[in-house]
Order: sequence, then structure tokens, then C-alpha cells
Amino acid sequence: MKIIIFGGDGFCGWPTSLHLAAEGHDVLIVDNLSRRQIDNELSSGSLTKISSINERIDTAKKKIGNIDFINLDVEKDSKGVHNVLSSFRPHAVVQFAEQRAAPYSMIGDTERRYTIDNNVTGTHNICSAIVEVDPNIHIVHLGTMGVYGYNKVYGSIPEGYLDVQISSTGLDTEILYPANPGSVYHLSKCLDQLIFQFYNKNWGLRITDLHQGIVWGVETAETKKDQKLVNRFDYDGIYGTVLNRFISQAANNHPLTVYGTGGQSRAFIHISDTARCVRLALENYDFDTSKVRIFNQVSEIFSVSGLAKILEKQYGAEVNYVENPRKELSDNELEVSNTGLLSLGFEPIKLDEGLVEDVKFIADSTKENFNHTRVLTSPNW
Amino acid sequence: MKIIIFGGDGFCGWPTSLHLAAEGHDVLIVDNLSRRQIDNELSSGSLTKISSINERIDTAKKKIGNIDFINLDVEKDSKGVHNVLSSFRPHAVVQFAEQRAAPYSMIGDTERRYTIDNNVTGTHNICSAIVEVDPNIHIVHLGTMGVYGYNKVYGSIPEGYLDVQISSTGLDTEILYPANPGSVYHLSKCLDQLIFQFYNKNWGLRITDLHQGIVWGVETAETKKDQKLVNRFDYDGIYGTVLNRFISQAANNHPLTVYGTGGQSRAFIHISDTARCVRLALENYDFDTSKVRIFNQVSEIFSVSGLAKILEKQYGAEVNYVENPRKELSDNELEVSNTGLLSLGFEPIKLDEGLVEDVKFIADSTKENFNHTRVLTSPNW
Repeated sequence: MKIIIFGGDGFCGWPTSLHLAAEGHDVLIVDNLSRRQIDNELSSGSLTKISSINERIDTAKKKIGNIDFINLDVEKDSKGVHNVLSSFRPHAVVQFAEQRAAPYSMIGDTERRYTIDNNVTGTHNICSAIVEVDPNIHIVHLGTMGVYGYNKVYGSIPEGYLDVQISSTGLDTEILYPANPGSVYHLSKCLDQLIFQFYNKNWGLRITDLHQGIVWGVETAETKKDQKLVNRFDYDGIYGTVLNRFISQAANNHPLTVYGTGGQSRAFIHISDTARCVRLALENYDFDTSKVRIFNQVSEIFSVSGLAKILEKQYGAEVNYVENPRKELSDNELEVSNTGLLSLGFEPIKLDEGLVEDVKFIADSTKENFNHTRVLTSPNW
Repeated sequence: MKIIIFGGDGFCGWPTSLHLAAEGHDVLIVDNLSRRQIDNELSSGSLTKISSINERIDTAKKKIGNIDFINLDVEKDSKGVHNVLSSFRPHAVVQFAEQRAAPYSMIGDTERRYTIDNNVTGTHNICSAIVEVDPNIHIVHLGTMGVYGYNKVYGSIPEGYLDVQISSTGLDTEILYPANPGSVYHLSKCLDQLIFQFYNKNWGLRITDLHQGIVWGVETAETKKDQKLVNRFDYDGIYGTVLNRFISQAANNHPLTVYGTGGQSRAFIHISDTARCVRLALENYDFDTSKVRIFNQVSEIFSVSGLAKILEKQYGAEVNYVENPRKELSDNELEVSNTGLLSLGFEPIKLDEGLVEDVKFIADSTKENFNHTRVLTSPNW
């Protein structure tokens, strides 16, 4: 299958691109390298030493499969999006080219505007160009569990759609799950959902939206094949996801910093499973397009303090409870359906299978770069 | 009250700006004159001969009240938005600076992208700047009845929020009315709604969203005060709203062109009432800000064929049924609540009060400019 990966140089995009190429697909990465630019802006960076995009591609061509790269800004260069679709003629595109950090989107006015403009305009440019070039191209988009919010007020979280009864008429019906974002980043994914809904309704576009949990881990079978293919690993308070922050702290004998009580329950998924789930969504493209297909891309639910306790027990890591910089419930219950991807053959990696190896990898490879002051850098909101 | 009117040079923005100034408010129009630019692009234009913005402002200063103008692009110049808020220090802003024609938004890729980028980025720039400058500034936004869709599947249309029971838990709750846009233009207003919801939730912004029906008419008490204050009047298939197209056809002895069966029911409002409702929303700013305040800004419901029959009867206008260029239900029932604005004192102008005068005005002032081939210019979608 010919697949364009918008945002294929990033934390999720890169291992997914490699995995698809390894599985025999013909992959074209389209990326403006903005994530590397943000490293400079934040004076932060990956704990692992990532290669330049050219080194990555050269190595992947030798060790993995058919993969290529074009530097293009999906928000700013709508004509470029059109051209790359027309010339490469993909069967599917994957949209990873979005600013992905909730804390980054809450730093201030500039970051709020960048997140909305980059994510929403970028996603809309892709949809609009696909209407022109070939409405049969399957769009796979990385959404987020954060579109639902994290309170269990509507019960167990279904996959995208919610069954309700309209009070005034008694009609039983299904609606798009009411948006309840907790940051401008999450808001941008809620806006994407409405764009998809309309482009599906009006032009019949084939769209899969993957509402992903919080990703942890760093290496996949493909990124391990060569040091030059290594994935990025963020542990700072802005781009580092919670479990990866904990892993980096545990690996470096620093106390784990838990926001608030740690009672926040969240859904998690290993980075290898991100790549596998995207592949499952791509390869199973023959679905009912009367609506957008929405899957929850998650493996397990943990509370933040529960995660900290696992690392405490296993590695003797100390736990520090710090003030929560975020506006969120101090604790919540969470139940999430993930039957869609399970039905396609998804076999989730559980925390107790992957954690030891990931902590060891981080401990071995990153000791000299770890700077514990980089962990608590989240803005307050 | 000090009020910034973003988009104050347009069809709704201009008479609203004049009305607010006439009522003693201190008005600053911020507009990039894009609507005049689109006239050039479409080789179309207002049936009435509108003055330049400088003539408009000079005349309004003499005849109406405190009013001024700054040329600024709300989408492209976010710093300008910030600066004008900081220097003028308004109590409230009104956001009219959106591309407002559903048919325009459905012409093609360029127009789809322009509509999303201009409307969504513009609205978000205003919200984000208000967080920085003064979170107490009241935002009044012109939404559209089109966010609800026009099928009566959920019963009578409430004001923004829908009471439902969650099927899995039996919980009775209120949700934002599920978005059901019929064009990219309507989609952009649905995206605005989610932006408002989050900015209200996270920063407590005071926001009123006015979901307006289809506007008809052209003159208001203030635009009549001087020929140089005349409002624009569009009758083409792209910017002309349905009743105004009919009025221009009736006034010029041309057959009324009804899309499809004319069974589409829509909510209508006179342009004078647009201005009055916005004023009511602005002056009644002391409301519960635990959520966005949403009003339906509408006066009466008519089916399109019902409107045509009124004009047929009153003016002997012929009626031509033409193929419907739009993807929409061929007929629908519609019931809309407008109790919010009524409770603030809104007294709607009814069609049978205003129609005679408006047809006469159009007939008298526009005969030499009317070009019947301009009426059927809608794109198909």
C-alpha cells in the first residue's frame, strides 16, 4: 500500500513510518521538522540522540524498506499538500503533523495560536486537497482520549459515539461524543473531529480517527535495528508524557514527581502498539463509510499514583507529590472501550511486559544527558 | 460602552455599528475590507451603491455618533488584534469578521480553506488575545442557525443546549447541541462554538453566541439617514440570501427562482433586528458565565416556497422551480426557540410589516443595476 505519513519525523510518526515500511508498505514521510525546531525554542531535547532526517531515511532505506521524505509544511503550504498527493497517489495518508503537547499549547498566546492554526488548518488542508485529488484516499488521524474529558459522568467511554435519548421527544439516537477538551491541544483534536464529520458527510471521505491514550516507551522492533533509527524520548514537563517522565526519573535515581494526588486515571499505550494499531487501521480499510470510524487506541488504565507505586516497588524510586500545574480533576475513574482495534487483531503490550526493558534502555543510554531540572517545566493553567 | 466591531464594514456589521453608535456607544470598526475584495473576485457587487469606508465613517461621525475605523486582518495580524484591544480597551467586542456565505465556502478548495482559516483562526485570535489583555471583555459572536442542521429530528430547536438522557447510565444532562453543519461555512461556526466552550471553561471568558437566522432587508433607521450610509445588498447566488434574492427579482419583474421544491423551512430575521439583538446582547452583559450564553437570533419561520407565494400574491411575481444546487433535505419542519432575546425585550419585525417597504426601496434604487443572470450563480454541492 502507498502511504503518506504527515508528521513522520515525530515521536509517534517515526516508529510508525518504520513499522509500515518494514511490513512492506511504500512510505513517504512529509514533515517540516517542526518538532526539532521546538527543541531549540524550548532549549530542551530528546534524551536519546536522534539522527538527522537524512541519516534516518538513508539508514531506513538500507535496513527497513521503501521509505522516503519530503520537507513540507502542511499548514502553510496547501499547494504542496495538493502536489504531493497528486504525484505520490497514496492509498492512504496518516495525519500525525499536529503539535502534540497539551502543556505546550497552554504556555501562552503564541503557543495557543500555533497549536490551533497548525493542527486545524493542517488537517483541513489535507481533507480539502483529498476532495480534489482523490476522495477514495483513506485518512487515518491520530486523535486523543482527551476529546472525551476524563470524568466518568457519561459512564464507560465508548468509541467516539454516545447513545442518548433526546429528553423532549424520547428519541433514542447516537451522537458524536460531546467534546470536553482540557487544553488547547485537546481542543484542536475536537475541532478536527467536526471537520472529519462534515467531510465524511458531504464528500463521503473514508476517515479513521484514533483516539489514543498516553504513549509510553521509546523503542520498537524497527528503531532497534540501528542506532541511527532510534526514536526520540522526551522527559521534560512540556513534551514528556507522564510515564516516560517517571521512567527517566527511575532510571536516573531521581524521585518521581507526581502532580497533585496522582488520583488522575488515564489510558496508556506503548509506542510499539501505536505503530501496530495505525497499521491495523490502514490495512482494514474496507469499512462502512456512512460515518467516521472512531477507535480508542489504548491498552490499559492506570492512575498516575498507581504508576508511581509500580516504579517505586520495582526500582525503589522515591515519590514526590508536587502541586498540579493543570486544571483537571484531582482524581477520576475511567473505563474505556477498545473493542474496535481488538476486533482487528490488536494484542496490547501490558505495562508489566514492557516496563523493565524500557527502563533499562533509558538507564543505559541516557545517563549522561538526563537533567532532573528539565522534568518540572510545565506551565500552569 | 466601548465596543470593537470586528467585521464592521459588512452587511450585518455596518448597520450594527451604526445602530450602536446611534444609541450612544463608542464604536471602533476593525475590518480588512475583505468583503469588498470578494466583490472584485466574483465580479459581483452590491445592488446599492455603497460608499468607501472613509466616506462611511466621515458621514457617520457627523450624522450618527462616535465611530471610528482601523484596517486590520483579524486572521493574519494577531499582534494587531492584541494591540487594538490594549489601546482601545473595549468593554465588549462583536465578532462579525467571518466569511459569511455558505455557497462561497463550497465553490472549491481555495474557498473552503479561506473560510476555515479566516473564520476559525480569526475567532481564536480574538479569544486568545482577550485572555492576555483583559478576560472581562465580553465577546458577542454571530453564529448561525445552521450549526443545528435543519432536520427536526431532535424536536424543537432549543437555544444552544440540548437535554438528553445518557442511555448507558440513565443520567439526565445538558449537552451542547450536536453540530450538524451543511456547508464549510456552517462548519466554521461549529468549530467556533467549541473554541468558545473551552475558553469559557478554562479562563471564564464571558461569551454570547447568537445563532442567527437568514437575514433579509437592507435598510435600517440609521442607514437611511444619509445616502452615504446605505447598506450593501447582495442578490447573487453566492452572497444573496434567499429572501433578498426574491425581493430583488420581484422588484425587477423577474421570476423568483426557488431551489428544488422550496419545501426547506428556515428561520428569518430583518437586518434592523440583527442590529437590535446584538445591542440587547451587549447591554445585558451581566449573566451567568458558567457556560457560553447562546441565543437564537430569529423572528419567524417560513418555507422557501411559502416566501415565494407571499411575493407571488403581493407583487404578481412568477415562480420558477430550479434544480437545487445544495445538498440539503428537500423539505423539513422547523421549530426554534427564541425566548432568550425575547426576554431581553426583543420585538421582532414581522415579514408583513417590513416587506412592502423593502421591495419598494430595492425597486426604486436599483433598477439600472439589477442583472438577472447574477441570481443563479451558486456552486453545486
